[in-house]
Amino acid sequence: MTKIVIIGGVAGGASAAARARRVSETAEIIMLERGEFVSFANCGLPYHISGEIESRDALLLQTPESFKSRFNVNVRVFNEVIAIDRQAKQLSIRNLMTNETYQESYDKLLLSPGASPIKPPISGINNHFVYSLRNIPDMDKILSNLMLHKPKHATVVGGGFIGLEMVEALRHIGLEVTLLELADQVMGPVDIEMANMLHQKLVDNGVDLRLKTGLTAVNECPIPLTDADNTDDYDKPVTAHNHLELSLSDDNILGTDLVILAIGVKPETSLATECGLALGKLGGIRVDARMQTSDPDIYAVGDAIETADFVTGNPSLIPLAGPANRQGRLAADNMLGGDKVYRATQGTAICKLFDMAIASTGLNEKSLLRQSIPFEKIYVHTASHASYYPGAHPITLKLLFCPESGRILGAQAAGIDGVDKRIDVLAVAQRAGMTVYDLADLELTYAPPFGSARDVVNQAGMVAANVLLGDEAICHTQDLLNLSAKQIIVDVRNPGELTAVGSIDGALNIPLPELRDRLDELPKDKELLVFCQVGLRGHVAYRMLVQHGFKVRNLTGGYKTYQMVNARF
Amino acid sequence: MTKIVIIGGVAGGASAAARARRVSETAEIIMLERGEFVSFANCGLPYHISGEIESRDALLLQTPESFKSRFNVNVRVFNEVIAIDRQAKQLSIRNLMTNETYQESYDKLLLSPGASPIKPPISGINNHFVYSLRNIPDMDKILSNLMLHKPKHATVVGGGFIGLEMVEALRHIGLEVTLLELADQVMGPVDIEMANMLHQKLVDNGVDLRLKTGLTAVNECPIPLTDADNTDDYDKPVTAHNHLELSLSDDNILGTDLVILAIGVKPETSLATECGLALGKLGGIRVDARMQTSDPDIYAVGDAIETADFVTGNPSLIPLAGPANRQGRLAADNMLGGDKVYRATQGTAICKLFDMAIASTGLNEKSLLRQSIPFEKIYVHTASHASYYPGAHPITLKLLFCPESGRILGAQAAGIDGVDKRIDVLAVAQRAGMTVYDLADLELTYAPPFGSARDVVNQAGMVAANVLLGDEAICHTQDLLNLSAKQIIVDVRNPGELTAVGSIDGALNIPLPELRDRLDELPKDKELLVFCQVGLRGHVAYRMLVQHGFKVRNLTGGYKTYQMVNARF
Repeated sequence: MTKIVIIGGVAGGASAAARARRVSETAEIIMLERGEFVSFANCGLPYHISGEIESRDALLLQTPESFKSRFNVNVRVFNEVIAIDRQAKQLSIRNLMTNETYQESYDKLLLSPGASPIKPPISGINNHFVYSLRNIPDMDKILSNLMLHKPKHATVVGGGFIGLEMVEALRHIGLEVTLLELADQVMGPVDIEMANMLHQKLVDNGVDLRLKTGLTAVNECPIPLTDADNTDDYDKPVTAHNHLELSLSDDNILGTDLVILAIGVKPETSLATECGLALGKLGGIRVDARMQTSDPDIYAVGDAIETADFVTGNPSLIPLAGPANRQGRLAADNMLGGDKVYRATQGTAICKLFDMAIASTGLNEKSLLRQSIPFEKIYVHTASHASYYPGAHPITLKLLFCPESGRILGAQAAGIDGVDKRIDVLAVAQRAGMTVYDLADLELTYAPPFGSARDVVNQAGMVAANVLLGDEAICHTQDLLNLSAKQIIVDVRNPGELTAVGSIDGALNIPLPELRDRLDELPKDKELLVFCQVGLRGHVAYRMLVQHGFKVRNLTGGYKTYQMVNARF
Repeated sequence: MTKIVIIGGVAGGASAAARARRVSETAEIIMLERGEFVSFANCGLPYHISGEIESRDALLLQTPESFKSRFNVNVRVFNEVIAIDRQAKQLSIRNLMTNETYQESYDKLLLSPGASPIKPPISGINNHFVYSLRNIPDMDKILSNLMLHKPKHATVVGGGFIGLEMVEALRHIGLEVTLLELADQVMGPVDIEMANMLHQKLVDNGVDLRLKTGLTAVNECPIPLTDADNTDDYDKPVTAHNHLELSLSDDNILGTDLVILAIGVKPETSLATECGLALGKLGGIRVDARMQTSDPDIYAVGDAIETADFVTGNPSLIPLAGPANRQGRLAADNMLGGDKVYRATQGTAICKLFDMAIASTGLNEKSLLRQSIPFEKIYVHTASHASYYPGAHPITLKLLFCPESGRILGAQAAGIDGVDKRIDVLAVAQRAGMTVYDLADLELTYAPPFGSARDVVNQAGMVAANVLLGDEAICHTQDLLNLSAKQIIVDVRNPGELTAVGSIDGALNIPLPELRDRLDELPKDKELLVFCQVGLRGHVAYRMLVQHGFKVRNLTGGYKTYQMVNARF
């Protein structure tokens, strides 16, 4: 009879416990959770704060009782492991309710401690109006602030998934919101021109967006004179007068009523470190593909570990729920004698922001550049379904691929409708080792309410394949911004479009329908950088011009991409 | 300079013309269309009838003028090819406006004539109140009937894509609708238990659904006595009194005001046959993977041809827009010296029906049985996104796979939300040659509004993998209906569920949470056929019981699938 002890009762740990019982009816399974809750919906927390998920109970997916009755798992909440004795295969555990400490042995141990919010060493950061959001008690504290103090203004620090979801949640319930982001863009997994779509959406929704701006200090505001005697009393019920003054890296001062700290998470490795388990380069617990740590009797899963990146095989920290669940399931198999291997993480992820979604899979351009991996990129802007059927919205898709093989390196998409579907399709294609040629041939569902006979993904595959096959030479916004004397820019859109959305300084405008008859207006000794609105007519122009002996390149993604790249926030 | 003539100016033909020009600026390209319109949105026709697509112009994607100015393609509408002289490489063409006939030579000829609605040889079928819907003039005729005669009741014959879309369109604008379907199910591409979800949806939306019922005669109703002198005058403007009497195969008579004939299409092969091109086994034009017919100078694409089925490689007739577009593009390349090959058709398709969608890819169970291809099948019913986030709806997914290799043979899904995405994911996985094991590992976008940490497709992959690995033995509804004396049925749901949705006669009810303590109530000498509502708790029960020495199988898809299989309409 194997005795399995699991530390941490959320995504990875809970999956492992359920799976372990299905594999072995005789195993003893103990799940230790230092918090009050196991298997709660941590991804749902912002949506209960916004009120979109009405019932708090909806977030509690399993209880210790349901784990017991269904899976015969001994769940102990408020039980914190304080030390692992690997030699003796024994844990020291503190019951946080009674403060008693006891020992528990294990045959196999699973670490699923998750990650903890990063709290920068900033003056005043421990103020009671500064919150993180990682679990139910965190959420409860924020909700209680909202209820008791009826704040007018909130500041979210960090524009990652949780930061953006909290910005939306707080706007949803009517607060003024400032978003501080130290980097030049929110949503690190996508590249900046894609993030610019989010920046625009934030501004459009009245968010005070401050990029390249950090938080340097949190100060409790002076209480109005009448309450002066309460200044130092943190235990006193706070009043509507209370609020904070934030010092920012640009020397501005920002008045606010509460702060949500969402600058990221770091793997919880204290237990692992203390008992001498090996960590990886990035500071996560090191595991092999079987989720085994450097101690063969200890496994680890979830946000606390490093996994191999799907594209490069390099270690990566990817704190996402899907991988954690799969790792937990697989670790359970292996702890019970199985030999399953985990097949790398693509980092497929999505974030809703107001009526928009942004999603990505694989590597982005920034990381390809950082790792000196050769790539080409194309953009398409294509309707989410047949444009003549109501409710179609453009999807902006960026596809990164190997310039030799056409292998998919990564993809990013943003839009109002159908973004999740396209990144899912591309994530599957990437995992299957497909190339951009394969994308052109994919046979996807089509009826006017759902797609197009030539879907966004087909379109992207065709454009990329054209580039690889030499059927089209493309240029990028940077080329247009760094024009040489041997190049001219040709805008093949119709004059009405130029009036409506603008054009590029110095561009020669010849509308596509007139182009074949006006070839003599174009120089043969210069390179023509052609563009249209989204790249499609530019391609037609490219094909025409190159066959007439011109040197040409087409701006991938057209003027729309040019605007995304050049947007400033 | 190559002279390309294209017969047929919609999906395949229009794609080919545009692509041919991009490939060759010097080619002469002529597109002949016997109708008035080229490149119209035939998939949108029902939605303009329903009024959801407001503007008729939205359906006209390109015009002869736009083809000329953008692609320098000579488009001749109302020009019908009446003969192909393959020896002389010459066409006889009739201008339907002037009725003049002329000759046109070609270097390469592309046939893209499409398919025509099947019109059964039924008495009275040519009545002016009997319509097909294949093109803009067809649509205009139906719209003019609706406007002029304000019909109260319509009869749709045939429950395929167009039939179902027309049922919805006509209900949408307030008509009473009867749907006649000769088979025992609508929507042939899916299996009957999946179609039963459509049958229920039709009934729920007030459609008079008559399965296994054919149309045997159409009779013009006797005109009321006051109008008796007009009885034989078909040219006279019809009045509100006019309507039809339909004779049905079950000897019933059905009064109706108009009939939409949508029993399917057959490849347009008359020109091909007359000039001696080879046809395939199924009656479509035979082409190789390069879209070349038996004459090396003649290519054919779209609904008129037979293509290889992706799973079996056998010829198949698949009249869908996506494949037609890709084939047209590829034929253009090859007519101009390319060597592209078409990579088989999966038949990926989707249909909207009221608030529901149903979609499929690959082979269905019927065709696997017909072709004696070994398969296993599993069902899952899983929320379209995190069930705690508003707007989640169950997706019913049927997965067919090879019992040896786990290769995906086909998939069908139905539900209100996210059906297109799941079949797209599965279509890509199938095309990539993935197995059910790979499905379990797919890394898909997850945030509560879009999916689940363990998506529907992951879930299906895990269930199927469990079956293949021997971690679960499953049974099907048929097994429960044909129970032997050596088997008993065990329902592990909670008593409240039985009250709410019913159970199976003779089933022993032991709720899962009590099961481990009540094992002694179960016989070891009988096989236990276990079920729950959707299959998940049944799996947990299976794992528990089998490890305690019982002979067990779990009903895949649970009671919900059982109900789908047993539904009668």
